[in-house]
Amino acid sequence: SRELFVLTYGALVAQLCKDYEKDEDVNTCLDRMGYGIGVRLIDDFLARSAAKKCRSYSETADMIAQVAFKMYLGVTPRVSCSSAAGNEFSLILDKNPLVDFVEELPAERASLCYCNLLCGVIRGALEMVHLAAEVTFLQDRLKGDAVTEIGITFLRKAEDRKHKRN
Amino acid sequence: SRELFVLTYGALVAQLCKDYEKDEDVNTCLDRMGYGIGVRLIDDFLARSAAKKCRSYSETADMIAQVAFKMYLGVTPRVSCSSAAGNEFSLILDKNPLVDFVEELPAERASLCYCNLLCGVIRGALEMVHLAAEVTFLQDRLKGDAVTEIGITFLRKAEDRKHKRN
Repeated sequence: SRELFVLTYGALVAQLCKDYEKDEDVNTCLDRMGYGIGVRLIDDFLARSAAKKCRSYSETADMIAQVAFKMYLGVTPRVSCSSAAGNEFSLILDKNPLVDFVEELPAERASLCYCNLLCGVIRGALEMVHLAAEVTFLQDRLKGDAVTEIGITFLRKAEDRKHKRN
Repeated sequence: SRELFVLTYGALVAQLCKDYEKDEDVNTCLDRMGYGIGVRLIDDFLARSAAKKCRSYSETADMIAQVAFKMYLGVTPRVSCSSAAGNEFSLILDKNPLVDFVEELPAERASLCYCNLLCGVIRGALEMVHLAAEVTFLQDRLKGDAVTEIGITFLRKAEDRKHKRN
Protein backbone atom coordinates (compact mmCIF):
# COMPACT_ATOMS: atom_id res chain seq x y z
CA SER A 1 0.00 0.00 0.00
CA ARG A 2 1.27 3.34 -1.10
CA GLU A 3 -0.18 5.68 1.51
CA LEU A 4 2.28 4.82 4.26
CA PHE A 5 5.12 5.40 1.82
CA VAL A 6 3.72 8.69 0.60
CA LEU A 7 3.24 9.99 4.14
CA THR A 8 6.67 8.79 5.20
CA TYR A 9 8.16 10.57 2.21
CA GLY A 10 6.35 13.72 3.32
CA ALA A 11 7.92 13.37 6.77
CA LEU A 12 11.34 13.08 5.15
CA VAL A 13 10.86 16.23 3.09
CA ALA A 14 9.53 18.10 6.13
CA GLN A 15 12.57 17.07 8.14
CA LEU A 16 14.93 18.27 5.42
CA CYS A 17 13.07 21.56 5.27
CA LYS A 18 13.76 21.90 9.00
CA ASP A 19 17.41 21.01 8.44
CA TYR A 20 18.10 23.28 5.48
CA GLU A 21 16.98 26.81 5.06
CA LYS A 22 17.56 26.97 1.30
CA ASP A 23 15.28 25.06 -1.04
CA GLU A 24 18.27 24.31 -3.24
CA ASP A 25 19.95 22.50 -0.37
CA VAL A 26 16.83 20.41 0.27
CA ASN A 27 16.63 19.60 -3.43
CA THR A 28 20.27 18.57 -3.54
CA CYS A 29 19.87 16.43 -0.45
CA LEU A 30 16.77 14.68 -1.84
CA ASP A 31 18.59 14.03 -5.11
CA ARG A 32 21.60 12.63 -3.29
CA MET A 33 19.42 10.39 -1.10
CA GLY A 34 17.54 9.24 -4.16
CA TYR A 35 20.81 8.41 -5.89
CA GLY A 36 21.78 6.13 -3.00
CA ILE A 37 18.37 4.47 -3.19
CA GLY A 38 18.52 4.01 -6.97
CA VAL A 39 21.91 2.37 -6.73
CA ARG A 40 20.40 -0.26 -4.44
CA LEU A 41 16.95 -0.47 -5.99
CA ILE A 42 18.24 -1.46 -9.42
CA ASP A 43 18.99 -5.03 -8.29
CA ASP A 44 15.45 -5.43 -7.05
CA PHE A 45 14.14 -3.97 -10.28
CA LEU A 46 16.19 -6.22 -12.55
CA ALA A 47 15.33 -9.30 -10.50
CA ARG A 48 11.60 -8.67 -10.35
CA SER A 49 10.98 -7.13 -13.75
CA ALA A 50 12.99 -9.76 -15.62
CA ALA A 51 13.58 -6.89 -18.03
CA LYS A 52 15.55 -7.50 -21.17
CA LYS A 53 18.52 -5.32 -21.98
CA CYS A 54 17.43 -2.07 -23.59
CA ARG A 55 18.91 -1.40 -27.01
CA SER A 56 18.33 2.31 -27.17
CA TYR A 57 17.74 5.35 -24.99
CA SER A 58 14.17 5.26 -26.18
CA GLU A 59 13.66 1.71 -24.95
CA THR A 60 15.28 2.66 -21.65
CA ALA A 61 12.94 5.62 -21.17
CA ASP A 62 9.96 3.39 -21.93
CA MET A 63 11.21 0.80 -19.45
CA ILE A 64 11.49 3.42 -16.71
CA ALA A 65 8.00 4.73 -17.40
CA GLN A 66 6.10 1.55 -18.11
CA VAL A 67 7.81 -0.96 -15.85
CA ALA A 68 9.68 0.87 -13.08
CA PHE A 69 7.15 3.64 -12.34
CA LYS A 70 4.34 1.12 -12.52
CA MET A 71 6.15 -1.23 -10.16
CA TYR A 72 7.20 1.29 -7.54
CA LEU A 73 4.63 4.07 -7.76
CA GLY A 74 1.67 2.41 -9.42
CA VAL A 75 1.49 4.96 -12.24
CA THR A 76 2.67 5.02 -15.83
CA PRO A 77 3.99 8.35 -17.12
CA ARG A 78 3.77 9.19 -20.79
CA VAL A 79 7.12 9.35 -22.54
CA SER A 80 8.09 11.92 -25.10
CA CYS A 81 11.36 12.40 -26.86
CA SER A 82 12.37 16.00 -26.87
CA SER A 83 15.60 16.20 -28.84
CA ALA A 84 16.58 15.48 -32.39
CA ALA A 85 19.68 13.75 -31.05
CA GLY A 86 17.39 11.20 -29.39
CA ASN A 87 18.98 11.43 -25.97
CA GLU A 88 16.46 13.67 -24.17
CA PHE A 89 13.19 12.33 -22.88
CA SER A 90 10.36 13.54 -20.74
CA LEU A 91 8.29 11.44 -18.37
CA ILE A 92 4.96 13.18 -18.05
CA LEU A 93 2.73 12.49 -15.09
CA ASP A 94 -0.86 13.67 -15.04
CA LYS A 95 -1.08 12.39 -11.51
CA ASN A 96 1.81 12.12 -9.11
CA PRO A 97 1.07 9.73 -6.26
CA LEU A 98 3.94 11.09 -4.16
CA VAL A 99 2.05 14.34 -3.61
CA ASP A 100 -1.31 12.78 -2.74
CA PHE A 101 -1.27 14.39 0.68
CA VAL A 102 0.30 17.70 -0.34
CA GLU A 103 -2.08 20.55 -1.01
CA GLU A 104 0.48 23.08 -2.17
CA LEU A 105 4.00 24.21 -1.40
CA PRO A 106 4.25 26.83 1.32
CA ALA A 107 5.03 30.31 -0.04
CA GLU A 108 8.49 30.30 1.54
CA ARG A 109 9.31 27.01 -0.18
CA ALA A 110 8.54 28.06 -3.73
CA SER A 111 11.73 26.56 -5.17
CA LEU A 112 11.37 23.20 -3.48
CA CYS A 113 11.40 20.22 -5.84
CA TYR A 114 9.26 18.16 -3.52
CA CYS A 115 9.75 14.90 -5.42
CA ASN A 116 13.41 15.41 -6.23
CA LEU A 117 14.22 12.05 -4.64
CA LEU A 118 12.77 10.44 -7.78
CA CYS A 119 15.33 12.18 -9.99
CA GLY A 120 18.11 10.82 -7.83
CA VAL A 121 16.61 7.33 -7.87
CA ILE A 122 16.47 7.31 -11.66
CA ARG A 123 19.99 8.71 -11.96
CA GLY A 124 21.41 6.18 -9.50
CA ALA A 125 19.64 3.22 -11.06
CA LEU A 126 20.74 4.22 -14.58
CA GLU A 127 24.32 4.61 -13.46
CA MET A 128 24.32 1.02 -12.25
CA VAL A 129 23.47 -0.14 -15.76
CA HIS A 130 26.26 2.07 -17.10
CA LEU A 131 24.09 4.91 -18.33
CA ALA A 132 25.02 8.41 -17.25
CA ALA A 133 22.08 10.78 -17.19
CA GLU A 134 20.93 14.12 -15.91
CA VAL A 135 17.49 13.91 -14.35
CA THR A 136 15.53 16.99 -13.28
CA PHE A 137 12.01 18.25 -12.87
CA LEU A 138 10.97 20.37 -15.83
CA GLN A 139 7.39 20.96 -14.73
CA ASP A 140 5.64 20.33 -11.43
CA ARG A 141 1.93 20.47 -10.70
CA LEU A 142 2.81 21.53 -7.16
CA LYS A 143 4.18 24.71 -8.72
CA GLY A 144 1.10 25.36 -10.79
CA ASP A 145 2.17 23.60 -13.98
CA ALA A 146 -0.45 21.61 -15.85
CA VAL A 147 1.50 18.37 -15.54
CA THR A 148 4.51 17.03 -13.73
CA GLU A 149 7.40 16.43 -16.10
CA ILE A 150 10.68 14.74 -15.35
CA GLY A 151 13.42 15.34 -17.90
CA ILE A 152 16.04 12.67 -18.54
CA THR A 153 19.07 13.57 -20.62
CA PHE A 154 21.27 10.61 -21.42
CA LEU A 155 24.89 11.68 -21.54
CA ARG A 156 27.40 10.39 -23.97
CA LYS A 157 28.59 6.99 -22.83
CA ALA A 158 31.75 6.89 -20.75
CA GLU A 159 33.39 4.61 -23.30
CA ASP A 160 32.66 7.06 -26.08
CA ARG A 161 34.22 9.84 -24.07
CA LYS A 162 37.28 7.75 -23.35
CA HIS A 163 37.57 6.81 -27.01
CA LYS A 164 37.36 10.41 -28.03
CA ARG A 165 40.10 11.45 -25.64
CA ASN A 166 42.39 8.78 -27.07
CA SER B 1 6.11 -2.31 -4.26
CA ARG B 2 7.71 -2.13 -0.87
CA GLU B 3 11.39 -1.73 -1.69
CA LEU B 4 11.24 1.95 -2.59
CA PHE B 5 9.41 2.62 0.66
CA VAL B 6 11.86 0.57 2.72
CA LEU B 7 14.87 2.35 1.20
CA THR B 8 13.25 5.75 1.60
CA TYR B 9 12.55 4.96 5.23
CA GLY B 10 16.21 4.07 5.61
CA ALA B 11 17.17 7.46 4.17
CA LEU B 12 14.88 9.14 6.70
CA VAL B 13 16.44 7.30 9.64
CA ALA B 14 19.94 8.05 8.33
CA GLN B 15 19.08 11.75 8.08
CA LEU B 16 17.77 11.82 11.64
CA CYS B 17 20.93 10.09 12.81
CA LYS B 18 22.86 12.93 11.19
CA ASP B 19 20.59 15.48 12.85
CA TYR B 20 20.58 14.05 16.36
CA GLU B 21 23.53 12.72 18.25
CA LYS B 22 21.51 10.80 20.83
CA ASP B 23 19.62 7.67 19.86
CA GLU B 24 16.83 8.68 22.23
CA ASP B 25 16.28 11.88 20.25
CA VAL B 26 16.11 9.95 16.97
CA ASN B 27 13.65 7.53 18.55
CA THR B 28 11.48 10.36 19.82
CA CYS B 29 11.56 12.09 16.47
CA LEU B 30 10.58 8.91 14.61
CA ASP B 31 7.75 8.31 17.05
CA ARG B 32 6.51 11.88 16.65
CA MET B 33 6.67 11.67 12.85
CA GLY B 34 4.87 8.35 12.97
CA TYR B 35 2.16 9.86 15.13
CA GLY B 36 1.53 12.54 12.52
CA ILE B 37 1.36 9.86 9.85
CA GLY B 38 -0.99 7.64 11.85
CA VAL B 39 -3.37 10.53 12.42
CA ARG B 40 -3.69 10.92 8.64
CA LEU B 41 -3.40 7.27 7.66
CA ILE B 42 -6.42 6.18 9.72
CA ASP B 43 -8.87 7.67 7.21
CA ASP B 44 -7.28 5.71 4.41
CA PHE B 45 -7.33 2.59 6.54
CA LEU B 46 -10.99 2.89 7.53
CA ALA B 47 -12.02 3.66 3.96
CA ARG B 48 -10.13 0.82 2.34
CA SER B 49 -10.45 -1.87 4.98
CA ALA B 50 -14.19 -1.32 5.47
CA ALA B 51 -13.40 -2.52 8.99
CA LYS B 52 -16.22 -2.89 11.47
CA LYS B 53 -16.00 -1.19 14.82
CA CYS B 54 -13.90 -3.23 17.24
CA ARG B 55 -15.68 -4.24 20.44
CA SER B 56 -12.66 -5.02 22.55
CA TYR B 57 -8.96 -4.28 22.86
CA SER B 58 -8.35 -7.80 21.68
CA GLU B 59 -10.31 -7.23 18.47
CA THR B 60 -8.45 -3.97 17.97
CA ALA B 61 -5.05 -5.65 18.33
CA ASP B 62 -6.11 -8.34 15.84
CA MET B 63 -7.29 -5.66 13.42
CA ILE B 64 -3.93 -3.88 13.59
CA ALA B 65 -2.03 -7.10 13.02
CA GLN B 66 -4.19 -8.86 10.47
CA VAL B 67 -5.58 -5.98 8.46
CA ALA B 68 -3.40 -2.89 8.94
CA PHE B 69 0.03 -4.54 8.94
CA LYS B 70 -1.01 -6.74 6.05
CA MET B 71 -2.28 -3.72 4.11
CA TYR B 72 0.66 -1.39 4.66
CA LEU B 73 3.64 -3.68 5.21
CA GLY B 74 2.55 -6.95 3.64
CA VAL B 75 3.14 -8.99 6.79
CA THR B 76 0.90 -10.29 9.55
CA PRO B 77 2.37 -10.27 13.05
CA ARG B 78 1.22 -12.77 15.64
CA VAL B 79 -0.76 -11.24 18.48
CA SER B 80 -0.43 -12.23 22.10
CA CYS B 81 -2.16 -10.78 25.10
CA SER B 82 0.30 -10.21 27.86
CA SER B 83 -1.72 -8.93 30.81
CA ALA B 84 -4.45 -10.35 32.97
CA ALA B 85 -6.24 -7.01 32.69
CA GLY B 86 -6.54 -7.61 28.95
CA ASN B 87 -5.17 -4.26 27.88
CA GLU B 88 -1.60 -5.22 26.95
CA PHE B 89 -0.81 -6.90 23.67
CA SER B 90 2.25 -7.82 21.71
CA LEU B 91 2.59 -7.85 17.95
CA ILE B 92 5.31 -10.35 17.16
CA LEU B 93 7.10 -10.19 13.83
CA ASP B 94 9.32 -13.04 12.70
CA LYS B 95 10.22 -10.93 9.71
CA ASN B 96 10.22 -7.15 9.60
CA PRO B 97 10.10 -5.82 6.05
CA LEU B 98 11.22 -2.34 7.14
CA VAL B 99 14.71 -3.66 7.90
CA ASP B 100 15.14 -5.65 4.68
CA PHE B 101 18.13 -3.56 3.69
CA VAL B 102 19.63 -3.14 7.16
CA GLU B 103 22.36 -5.59 8.12
CA GLU B 104 22.79 -4.46 11.70
CA LEU B 105 22.82 -1.30 13.77
CA PRO B 106 26.20 0.45 13.93
CA ALA B 107 27.89 0.03 17.32
CA GLU B 108 27.46 3.70 18.14
CA ARG B 109 23.72 3.47 17.51
CA ALA B 110 22.99 0.58 19.86
CA SER B 111 19.93 2.26 21.40
CA LEU B 112 18.31 3.22 18.13
CA CYS B 113 14.76 1.93 17.65
CA TYR B 114 15.12 1.82 13.91
CA CYS B 115 11.43 1.19 13.24
CA ASN B 116 10.09 3.52 15.91
CA LEU B 117 8.02 5.31 13.30
CA LEU B 118 5.66 2.32 13.38
CA CYS B 119 4.96 2.84 17.09
CA GLY B 120 4.00 6.42 16.41
CA VAL B 121 1.81 5.42 13.46
CA ILE B 122 -0.11 2.93 15.61
CA ARG B 123 -0.44 5.41 18.47
CA GLY B 124 -1.64 8.20 16.18
CA ALA B 125 -4.12 6.01 14.34
CA LEU B 126 -5.55 4.61 17.58
CA GLU B 127 -5.97 8.07 19.01
CA MET B 128 -8.13 9.03 16.06
CA VAL B 129 -10.55 6.23 16.97
CA HIS B 130 -10.49 7.44 20.58
CA LEU B 131 -8.14 4.84 21.95
CA ALA B 132 -5.19 6.06 23.96
CA ALA B 133 -2.26 3.68 23.91
CA GLU B 134 1.41 3.41 24.66
CA VAL B 135 3.29 1.70 21.85
CA THR B 136 6.93 0.68 22.15
CA PHE B 137 9.38 -1.88 20.88
CA LEU B 138 9.89 -4.66 23.43
CA GLN B 139 12.21 -6.79 21.30
CA ASP B 140 14.04 -6.07 18.09
CA ARG B 141 15.85 -8.52 15.84
CA LEU B 142 18.19 -5.67 14.87
CA LYS B 143 19.36 -5.74 18.49
CA GLY B 144 19.92 -9.47 18.54
CA ASP B 145 16.52 -10.53 19.86
CA ALA B 146 14.94 -13.64 18.36
CA VAL B 147 11.89 -11.75 17.14
CA THR B 148 10.68 -8.19 16.78
CA GLU B 149 7.96 -7.40 19.28
CA ILE B 150 5.85 -4.27 19.48
CA GLY B 151 4.02 -3.76 22.75
CA ILE B 152 0.68 -1.98 22.79
CA THR B 153 -0.79 -0.98 26.13
CA PHE B 154 -4.27 0.42 25.87
CA LEU B 155 -4.77 3.08 28.48
CA ARG B 156 -7.94 3.53 30.40
CA LYS B 157 -10.41 5.38 28.25
CA ALA B 158 -10.52 9.12 28.65
CA GLU B 159 -14.19 8.92 29.61
CA ASP B 160 -13.43 6.39 32.32
CA ARG B 161 -10.74 8.64 33.69
CA LYS B 162 -13.06 11.61 33.64
CA HIS B 163 -15.80 9.61 35.28
CA LYS B 164 -13.47 8.50 38.01
CA ARG B 165 -12.32 12.04 38.69
CA ASN B 166 -15.95 13.13 39.08
